[in-house]
Amino acid sequence: MESRGTLRRAMVLVLAATQAYAQADPLPSWNDGPAKKAIIAFVQATTTPSGPRFVAPEARVATFDQDGTLWVEHPVYTQLMYSLDRVPAVVAKKPELAAVEPFKTVMSGDREAIAKLPMPELEKILAATLSGMTVEQFNAEAKKWLATAKHPRWKRPYTELAYQPMLEVLKYLRANGYKTYIVTGGGQDFVRLYSEEMYGIPPEQVVGTAGATTYGYDKNGSPVLTKEPKLLLNDNNAGKPEGIHLMIGRQPYAAFGNSTGDKQMLEYTRSGDGTRLAMLVLHDDASREYAYGPALGLPDSKVGTFTQALYGEAQKKGWIVISMKSDWKRVFAFDP
Amino acid sequence: MESRGTLRRAMVLVLAATQAYAQADPLPSWNDGPAKKAIIAFVQATTTPSGPRFVAPEARVATFDQDGTLWVEHPVYTQLMYSLDRVPAVVAKKPELAAVEPFKTVMSGDREAIAKLPMPELEKILAATLSGMTVEQFNAEAKKWLATAKHPRWKRPYTELAYQPMLEVLKYLRANGYKTYIVTGGGQDFVRLYSEEMYGIPPEQVVGTAGATTYGYDKNGSPVLTKEPKLLLNDNNAGKPEGIHLMIGRQPYAAFGNSTGDKQMLEYTRSGDGTRLAMLVLHDDASREYAYGPALGLPDSKVGTFTQALYGEAQKKGWIVISMKSDWKRVFAFDP
Repeated sequence: MESRGTLRRAMVLVLAATQAYAQADPLPSWNDGPAKKAIIAFVQATTTPSGPRFVAPEARVATFDQDGTLWVEHPVYTQLMYSLDRVPAVVAKKPELAAVEPFKTVMSGDREAIAKLPMPELEKILAATLSGMTVEQFNAEAKKWLATAKHPRWKRPYTELAYQPMLEVLKYLRANGYKTYIVTGGGQDFVRLYSEEMYGIPPEQVVGTAGATTYGYDKNGSPVLTKEPKLLLNDNNAGKPEGIHLMIGRQPYAAFGNSTGDKQMLEYTRSGDGTRLAMLVLHDDASREYAYGPALGLPDSKVGTFTQALYGEAQKKGWIVISMKSDWKRVFAFDP
Repeated sequence: MESRGTLRRAMVLVLAATQAYAQADPLPSWNDGPAKKAIIAFVQATTTPSGPRFVAPEARVATFDQDGTLWVEHPVYTQLMYSLDRVPAVVAKKPELAAVEPFKTVMSGDREAIAKLPMPELEKILAATLSGMTVEQFNAEAKKWLATAKHPRWKRPYTELAYQPMLEVLKYLRANGYKTYIVTGGGQDFVRLYSEEMYGIPPEQVVGTAGATTYGYDKNGSPVLTKEPKLLLNDNNAGKPEGIHLMIGRQPYAAFGNSTGDKQMLEYTRSGDGTRLAMLVLHDDASREYAYGPALGLPDSKVGTFTQALYGEAQKKGWIVISMKSDWKRVFAFDP
């Protein structure tokens, strides 16, 4: 009787442990595969106090690119969509712009012509729509847009287009003492408006492309910060590690990206001592999201931001590629 | 008997409550007075969940100037001391500088002449000693200096010269859910080296005057960040609220300063809704620390950074002046 009782208790314990394990899967939207395994192994290695690769809680920093890594970046990245939508309001205030490129093209509504605008022209649109107002005015306008604008494909607010598996990674890292940061080429002020609600990342943990502000006073003598068309930080490419140093002052232990603009951030992260995780999201799922980059098998000159060269570098350096198609059970929270 | 027992129990409770209160004094180095009362009233008002002035935990941000607010800034602020001490090493590498001002004066060792160097000349010294090396090289050099350099008056490491009452304020605010930030005209990279150990403020919560870095590779192909002589953020005066917006993205609920360079940060803090605390440390204690500013009764033209004009503004706007002499029981942890 004694031994049967012991066995029964042991079996109950095993069952309980199994259930706890099942309940505790921190990444339920991930298929079992090398990417999921790498994330879990990284967290376990760096948070096991007796282990050789333990990282002190205050040093646990993980950085995430946003566009194409945490949410959809096609057909164009969301902040550019915002800026294009703001052009009519800017032209209404300065009617002389209606006859000047690139504003003329944007006002024409010709989607094909707009899609062909080169980067320096797009930068004129960004500057005109993201500066020249107070921080409060910008915040109010952008919030209004975020609440009403919808993605052309899913007909849902952009803020619903976060990748569910990545939300789970953010949560899992935070549950293990990691401070999660967004390090984005997008505008810092723009992303800060929704990062807390969408990703659980507070404004002070958003590092983005940032323009200068000027402190002054309104007509009542109250302090105001005005957004200037002067670039302080271009948070792309080399600007990502530079921005991380400026705004965080610590080298990340984990970094997630999806494009050539994230290369330096991943290199910088991996160059630190101990276990460092570098991951790249590969867009290879045309049916659930989009397929671009090496997934298409095109030469780099025809590819956007995730090139064969970057893919090769990832393989050479031990960066882990996340295949949306095979690593993710679902892409969005609203997926079946 | 019953009533005597009840009375005894009541007295025990009163005694216990009194002891708990005494033990729980969060600001033991402060004399009871308007400054201490204001700090405690602010914390109680903003952290009482049922109260009308409750502040959500994530919005609790408090910002502190460093030089003259958290630690000694006389005879010159510590980072300038570091830069002056670094001049011989810079000249050894570039001997042609020995004949060029202001390096010539610094190399002469003539303290009076050095003290008279005007700001543009000092900026040349700062640029030459704080840039042109990798972040790692700078950190190693500055740490070595911090471990050995001593303040000329107290003959102690600079990192022992924090004001004990302000350390208590930092701790008290953090115990009540406030995130504490340093917002300093001093160099961000320099202050980050000791802020955690000295003030309990991690590097990512240090906003300071910041130069650009450039991402590149060393001869082994490993990533390095090089400090450039290009100013990104002059974190003084209007630069303080601009820096707070850039690096934190939230308006503080409490701000502490001691000079005209903190005026805009205090205005910006007070301009927010609800209860906002703005405090200025007045250096009026020549025997325990220094007396300067309005304490001397001199005209503003003869006064350094805390002017009669600022003192008047504080009184007009309800900013609270902290008198080192009358508000602080002791100035340093090593004071008797």
